[in-house]
Amino acid sequence: MLSVINWQSLSALEQRKCLSLPIQKPFVKDAVLTIINQVRTQGDKALFALTEQFDGLRLKELKISSEKIQKASISSKALNAIQEAIKNITVYHKASIPEERTLSTRPGISITCCYRPIQRVGLYVPGGNNTPLISSLLMQAIPAQVVGCPIKVLCTPPNPQGEVDPHLLVAARLCGINTIYSVGGAQAIAAMAYGTETIPKVDKLFGPGNSYVTEAKTLVSTDPLGAAIDMPAGPSEVMISADRNANPIFIAADLLAQAEHGRDSQVILLCDDIEIAREVYEQLKEQLPGLSRQAIAQASLKQSKIIVCPNFEDQLAIINWYAPEHLIINRIDAEAWVDKVTAVGTVFLGPWAAETLGDYITGSNHVLPTNGFAKSYSGLNTLDFVTRFTVQRVNEQGIKTLGPSAISLAEIEGLDAHAKAVQLRLQQLEI
Amino acid sequence: MLSVINWQSLSALEQRKCLSLPIQKPFVKDAVLTIINQVRTQGDKALFALTEQFDGLRLKELKISSEKIQKASISSKALNAIQEAIKNITVYHKASIPEERTLSTRPGISITCCYRPIQRVGLYVPGGNNTPLISSLLMQAIPAQVVGCPIKVLCTPPNPQGEVDPHLLVAARLCGINTIYSVGGAQAIAAMAYGTETIPKVDKLFGPGNSYVTEAKTLVSTDPLGAAIDMPAGPSEVMISADRNANPIFIAADLLAQAEHGRDSQVILLCDDIEIAREVYEQLKEQLPGLSRQAIAQASLKQSKIIVCPNFEDQLAIINWYAPEHLIINRIDAEAWVDKVTAVGTVFLGPWAAETLGDYITGSNHVLPTNGFAKSYSGLNTLDFVTRFTVQRVNEQGIKTLGPSAISLAEIEGLDAHAKAVQLRLQQLEI
Repeated sequence: MLSVINWQSLSALEQRKCLSLPIQKPFVKDAVLTIINQVRTQGDKALFALTEQFDGLRLKELKISSEKIQKASISSKALNAIQEAIKNITVYHKASIPEERTLSTRPGISITCCYRPIQRVGLYVPGGNNTPLISSLLMQAIPAQVVGCPIKVLCTPPNPQGEVDPHLLVAARLCGINTIYSVGGAQAIAAMAYGTETIPKVDKLFGPGNSYVTEAKTLVSTDPLGAAIDMPAGPSEVMISADRNANPIFIAADLLAQAEHGRDSQVILLCDDIEIAREVYEQLKEQLPGLSRQAIAQASLKQSKIIVCPNFEDQLAIINWYAPEHLIINRIDAEAWVDKVTAVGTVFLGPWAAETLGDYITGSNHVLPTNGFAKSYSGLNTLDFVTRFTVQRVNEQGIKTLGPSAISLAEIEGLDAHAKAVQLRLQQLEI
Repeated sequence: MLSVINWQSLSALEQRKCLSLPIQKPFVKDAVLTIINQVRTQGDKALFALTEQFDGLRLKELKISSEKIQKASISSKALNAIQEAIKNITVYHKASIPEERTLSTRPGISITCCYRPIQRVGLYVPGGNNTPLISSLLMQAIPAQVVGCPIKVLCTPPNPQGEVDPHLLVAARLCGINTIYSVGGAQAIAAMAYGTETIPKVDKLFGPGNSYVTEAKTLVSTDPLGAAIDMPAGPSEVMISADRNANPIFIAADLLAQAEHGRDSQVILLCDDIEIAREVYEQLKEQLPGLSRQAIAQASLKQSKIIVCPNFEDQLAIINWYAPEHLIINRIDAEAWVDKVTAVGTVFLGPWAAETLGDYITGSNHVLPTNGFAKSYSGLNTLDFVTRFTVQRVNEQGIKTLGPSAISLAEIEGLDAHAKAVQLRLQQLEI
């Protein structure tokens, strides 16, 4: 079970150490490089061979037929839940589509900020022990759909039966995705980054995955011939700040919801006094045995912590230093904390805001920066599916007004062809 | 000089080849890794040693004293030009500061999208053969300043006299930067990414540089203990589309302004007929000899092209395939082209919109994606200096409305602790 720590008894160095994340060593780099090269040189052939090697499956084809996608069916209960999620995620993401704006900085100068959907996006949904990660698909597909990315490619590994789960097919269909390949792992990332006979090359890759997928994404993103990626990935985390008014049953349930993600998930509870810590600890012991993923949750709790820290400023410093993917503020004074938070993936406020709701259904995106990356990265959003560029309009008045200063600056920088491109125009205007 | 190509006479394969960019081989990777390790293990000591090794300078201290920054002075002509640039860049970037927005996706659910300045940013301005790259400083410092990044660190290599040029010190001072270190190259990037005794570690790094700097940025950006970066870098490019109405003097001047950047710069002219090509070619020959950076421009022109291509759709396909950093549309029908452009760093419209103006003074940012990255990356903007997160508020009504669907989805994904975190709350509400 997780350890209980008295924050104020630690030295500054011990405090840093207490919050430091387990470093992910790229043990898989060589293996992933081999896979990428295989896919680049052999294309589809490599994908079939690697699927046989890693998934133990001899596929007849990579592409899911549109007939199969159209015919996929699921229970009406599941369909309703998926439709509810699609509805809310769509509403939220549509509201965040950026709008073109024009501004005149000086007379004769106007700058329009334009947005375009990224033309070809690749979405990856990992396999989940026969459990289809529908939410993962929705969080990528819906922003791509609402901004209008014309080419959307989805790769997901086949399940042990060699099929893609019908829940995923239905969810994809409802999000306007008709190009689905049953291929997973680093080979799927390589296929979408470089293209094969069957799978089109994309401009940007999205989606979570295991250490092979993550390494493959990193490698292709640093190759100009590869593809951009959404963000660096790491194990999932939650940090909860709770006061005496918080229900320990809820706190324990939220900690366990995070802990069941994976053995490397990190959960941290910040609480004002040792009493809360004790109550939550008891609740964890009570709720843990009933869970189907008990072993995973237990392993994750082992490296997790309850930090007792009565000081408001200290708790905030911990939050902003750690920069948690998910932050639950389960306190009476929760609202007052928000303005002070500088680095976080997403915040849940108050007793009813279970992280689960944000994972699936509120409409907010659940693809978030982990591993402290919230200090410099943001959660997925429509902005990640568009590019932005300025259109600069300059008329005679504009160049007359700003030309002389531009020439001065070009001269200071020693770029006289730059200066000349303005001078020659100004001369023309004087004629 | 550059080659003239008849687009329609090329096969599809030849067309692709014609537009393919020179691949940057990371020859410097090992050298850069050594530098990074040296800085991580030896801190400031390594910075002094590497400055002696690479710049031939024995510095007494790395940090520029605030007295030196305050006292730096330049000509009033230069000061006026810098102030004009600061004014316009500030106006444009202030208008693009994102605003907090709250949306209710369903009754009882509200999602606020919040923005926070990145707390610690590192800006890099490369050395320029004794020519201070002021504009490079302004394009990074002003967006950092307008969004309110509290810690802004600037590194720039000392000039051969061991000093930082007063133009840079004045520009930094006017942009609210008071923490300047005279250190350059991969060692400066490593210092800001990991911190030394003197130089603070930052969350995100910005700025251009040579192949060492670029490689160092790539390496630290893929290390969770390092720092995020603005975007991948490559040689600068311009693509110009010109019709018969365009002035060949202006076209040639714009091509040369790009070509003088570096021997690896690429300039491409798309024109409707061979006549324009001939006139521009003549103008290039005429303007080239007068330039101080003639040798560089000449080398760059050698790998550049004039593509004759009378077809509107073909020209657009070329533009969107190549995804140029700078696109100048010097045509009568320029406005009609904008909507069709999907991938570009920035667009200049019409005869008076010299790229030089955008490089320095219009207010738009000149840090732009190169090397085809405009298909998935955007030019620098205030958004690159903030992080974004959602605050999710859920009340009793909210969890009652959405809880059941969240439970269904968690169950399909096999995550029962996720389901339980909602179930336990719903039970509490029923009591």
